[in-house]
Amino acid sequence: MKIRIGILGYGNLGRGVECAVLQNPDMELRAVFTRRDPEELEILTKEAKVCHASEAPAWKDELDVMILCGGSATDLPRQTPEYAGLFNVVDSFDTHAKIPEHFAQVDAAAKAGGKTAVISAGWDPGMFSLNRLYAGAILPEGKDYTFWGRGVSQGHSDAIRRIPGVKDAKQYTIPVEEALASVRAGENPELTTRQKHTRECFVVTGEGADRVRIEEEIKTMPNYFADYDTTVHFITEEELAREHSGIPHGGFVLRSGVTGWEKENRHLIEYRLKLDSNPEFTASVIAAYARAAYRLSVEGSCGCKTVFDIAPAYLSPKSGEELRASLL
Amino acid sequence: MKIRIGILGYGNLGRGVECAVLQNPDMELRAVFTRRDPEELEILTKEAKVCHASEAPAWKDELDVMILCGGSATDLPRQTPEYAGLFNVVDSFDTHAKIPEHFAQVDAAAKAGGKTAVISAGWDPGMFSLNRLYAGAILPEGKDYTFWGRGVSQGHSDAIRRIPGVKDAKQYTIPVEEALASVRAGENPELTTRQKHTRECFVVTGEGADRVRIEEEIKTMPNYFADYDTTVHFITEEELAREHSGIPHGGFVLRSGVTGWEKENRHLIEYRLKLDSNPEFTASVIAAYARAAYRLSVEGSCGCKTVFDIAPAYLSPKSGEELRASLL
Repeated sequence: MKIRIGILGYGNLGRGVECAVLQNPDMELRAVFTRRDPEELEILTKEAKVCHASEAPAWKDELDVMILCGGSATDLPRQTPEYAGLFNVVDSFDTHAKIPEHFAQVDAAAKAGGKTAVISAGWDPGMFSLNRLYAGAILPEGKDYTFWGRGVSQGHSDAIRRIPGVKDAKQYTIPVEEALASVRAGENPELTTRQKHTRECFVVTGEGADRVRIEEEIKTMPNYFADYDTTVHFITEEELAREHSGIPHGGFVLRSGVTGWEKENRHLIEYRLKLDSNPEFTASVIAAYARAAYRLSVEGSCGCKTVFDIAPAYLSPKSGEELRASLL
Repeated sequence: MKIRIGILGYGNLGRGVECAVLQNPDMELRAVFTRRDPEELEILTKEAKVCHASEAPAWKDELDVMILCGGSATDLPRQTPEYAGLFNVVDSFDTHAKIPEHFAQVDAAAKAGGKTAVISAGWDPGMFSLNRLYAGAILPEGKDYTFWGRGVSQGHSDAIRRIPGVKDAKQYTIPVEEALASVRAGENPELTTRQKHTRECFVVTGEGADRVRIEEEIKTMPNYFADYDTTVHFITEEELAREHSGIPHGGFVLRSGVTGWEKENRHLIEYRLKLDSNPEFTASVIAAYARAAYRLSVEGSCGCKTVFDIAPAYLSPKSGEELRASLL
């Protein structure tokens, strides 16, 4: 019997989860829940139903895991605690500063309902966090570095779009090669915000817009751009659609540390992701943690977990014997 | 109260564990057990005792974890099952093909004694295995690559030393840059043994030795060198001591995979280690898993585990709250 999956929210992430479920033969998508009119939503999986979000509670016994694909700003803080009482759930809550609060609320709800919830599954938080934990535990005397990119930052692209005269925009976060090289060389540099990342913007303006003023507004925008070296390219709508329609991302987690009685030996641990599609990769991580949530629940576990709390073997469809024989 | 550690076997790995324990403030080394004459063994930690291996069973209640630092060929297959009945143990058993058998024997012994055993903790097996598991679970449709080096292969160095006329030798395994680049570019190459790694040998010969014959013997040696492009450098004893006394190693685990309804998006996951000291890094991984073994045992767990079976949080001295707030 396959793991019966539901998806709540059908944006880029929800569609990514739908694709990921198809790649995992031990899972099947049963239903997609939407706040839109279900009649007007077409999904890729012909065998799955499309239902209104309000119908979800009636599916309580029809799904093994409900995957919550809403946004971290307003959807998940409300949805995950709500659904964790009814279903095993997985979300990709990514507001790092609010994770402890979110964890507490989801944990209480999941325990009350006897369900297993996994929050903040994705790549950062998620796989990057895991690598920070492993590397820090192995090399207690060392220094962590996280670089993001080259990739599209939705928040920064949105910030540019709010500037008067801008029709559309896409912003790429780019790690500074020299900084990466210095970390890899074991130099343990102290890096300022400006030394770690640059920002590159592709901007489409409306007719007669003042490009000098727009470029200035971007480059001096506090929090978003003022602390970075920023490049602005004005391009046509066609070029933006042709060259910048993807949602690539990725980055690097590095730890540089020392061992030995005199701390004489240096070591570098580096984890790198290079992703054509940020939402589809996040969705793929979520799918693996949905398997884990289901299995933990079958074992009688309940409450909220993060990637830190879940033994790696739970993510794989292979048995312990197979894993030891083939991957160890 | 600190985690009380014992070390059995005081070679490079045992000494590495001793150094690692010092870097973990929640651990203390209580005793080193040796098959040599304890009177003649000097260790670095003044507070710890040096005892003969035969005295180890008497320490049953004095140690929280016994770390087994013998070799995988003959020591560990015998020692780990023997000690797992008396102590929580960690080893770095690295004969990949024999892991299932070793697991079964250690599991039976640890369960009989009510103890927790962790086998094959290190980097390969160990951190590399973990990364193969995580990456494969996240990207079910993809291809795995493991490259080793640049690093010293003890087995290959020993093989050269057995050739008549050779006084000493050091062999480096080196990943082929073009192969790595092709994998990183998402080309999913099929790579032969020769295309993945080269071998570089630094050889000291005795007086009057036939270097042409020695070079030929190395390059044509079945299993060890015949399938690789091998370079041989003849150097002096002094140069070997000066330039090649370290034990560096490392390598790369990569997975290249696709997502999307039409498998239209490509992703690359790369994990890299660059290690000045192979045994000290292995020892650092072992120390983190010793913490995990101790905690699992306190929780009432018993039997044999591998890195696949242990939730990452067990490796860190930080609490769940601290981890979520600082690393997630």
